[in-house]
Amino acid sequence: MSPETETHSKTSARTPAMQCCLIAGQVAFVGSGPGDPDLLTVKALKAIIGADVILFDRLVSQEILDLAGPETRMENVGKEGFGPQVSQDEICARLVEHAQAGLKVVRLKSGDPTIFGRLDEELTACDEAGINYQILPGITAASAAVAGIGQSLTQRGRNTSVRFVTGHDMKGFADHDWAALARKGEVAAIYMGKKSARFVQGRLIMHGADRATPITIVENASRADQRVLETTLNRLPQDLADAAFDGPALTLFGLAPRDGAAILNDLKMELA
Amino acid sequence: MSPETETHSKTSARTPAMQCCLIAGQVAFVGSGPGDPDLLTVKALKAIIGADVILFDRLVSQEILDLAGPETRMENVGKEGFGPQVSQDEICARLVEHAQAGLKVVRLKSGDPTIFGRLDEELTACDEAGINYQILPGITAASAAVAGIGQSLTQRGRNTSVRFVTGHDMKGFADHDWAALARKGEVAAIYMGKKSARFVQGRLIMHGADRATPITIVENASRADQRVLETTLNRLPQDLADAAFDGPALTLFGLAPRDGAAILNDLKMELA
Repeated sequence: MSPETETHSKTSARTPAMQCCLIAGQVAFVGSGPGDPDLLTVKALKAIIGADVILFDRLVSQEILDLAGPETRMENVGKEGFGPQVSQDEICARLVEHAQAGLKVVRLKSGDPTIFGRLDEELTACDEAGINYQILPGITAASAAVAGIGQSLTQRGRNTSVRFVTGHDMKGFADHDWAALARKGEVAAIYMGKKSARFVQGRLIMHGADRATPITIVENASRADQRVLETTLNRLPQDLADAAFDGPALTLFGLAPRDGAAILNDLKMELA
Repeated sequence: MSPETETHSKTSARTPAMQCCLIAGQVAFVGSGPGDPDLLTVKALKAIIGADVILFDRLVSQEILDLAGPETRMENVGKEGFGPQVSQDEICARLVEHAQAGLKVVRLKSGDPTIFGRLDEELTACDEAGINYQILPGITAASAAVAGIGQSLTQRGRNTSVRFVTGHDMKGFADHDWAALARKGEVAAIYMGKKSARFVQGRLIMHGADRATPITIVENASRADQRVLETTLNRLPQDLADAAFDGPALTLFGLAPRDGAAILNDLKMELA
């Protein structure tokens, strides 16, 4: 590789290192997936079983927490809604402290830590303290939700891309974002979209979206208490209010549950 | 629930049914994740072990195929590039035939079957034949790739949404798509983006994107032979040509590998 190239691009082989991955004095940021313990990755399961201490969020399911061994110290650092129960600074401080004490530290986050997981503050804290870390991806809520209604997030001839967005961030959307989403066939997965439903409806209709655009909201995706609300852009706010979801909900904009004759039995029941 | 509401929205409880999930005479569409067997979900692992027959794609890793039992019939239906090795019609016909013969059928797809997985044709074939199915989500390449460079796909104060797109579909992008992507801080995961690199570069620069926008391409994400190319929008086509990637590659537009002092050891080596 020439010195010129080295400055601008770097490429090399990775060492295979896929044994169970926890190292004393390091932090593993682990995605727990949407809640079903069977949707943990094998690697995440090994990390949960092997951890000395697990700092977990409010949305990690009890069935998953129950997989940790009796020796593992469990620390609930969950945030309630928009108000922190344990501050971000405190979480960062604990991660560093436990790692510096030589523990195998797991920071367990619902879904995929790289998607709306507020991961970066904690990575920075590790960096600043010289603590090594790794990130274990998880199944994000959008994937579980869309699988649960028998649909794809992308489909040839319908949508050539899919956007993942948080409901509260959509208030900062520019006009071209709304124009793009308002086109026929577009699909978006909206995380934490309940509170912004009326706002989103207004903007999309203003930008020409069809009021009959299908919208499906999946509460507690993959969990035993999963619920599915099938609605349209036109009816979104009122149907959402009627459903009174209180669990985490993923809004699939542009998708209705698949209307197959032979769809999965429990889904048929659910939608009957 | 009033009859009026019933017509427009449906909501109900789901039955808990999370035992190992294969049923004779049904098809499970299973995401294998990006290649590391430890990034299979527990549910996918159980499905692979329990299947009577597995129809798998070219990109499913050998380590994952090796997890199937000696009794399981393995059918390679992989597609080479844009030309099908086994036609889509043939794949659909085999799924139906095996299910009708009473087998536990697994259709194993690389990554997440709901993201650029060409799932819908096969679901339709099952529907038309009256075959029940279920979809098991997998870790998509974008999640594995971004975790491997110590970054998040979303970050407060940087990007409020992330877009997943295929390189060849970007030729159908409208002007507002390009304008949105060209904004500072935007992040996109481009699947199969190698061939379209020069086209994408041209459009983004035309729409005002900064030529210094970081771009990272991860080949064989999560696998032992993973390689990482760190470049910029300005240098994308030439650096990609120099790297001569021949494995599946995920392009992270808007992201450079995290420049932490204490990032994961093997990643440090990789980027040194």
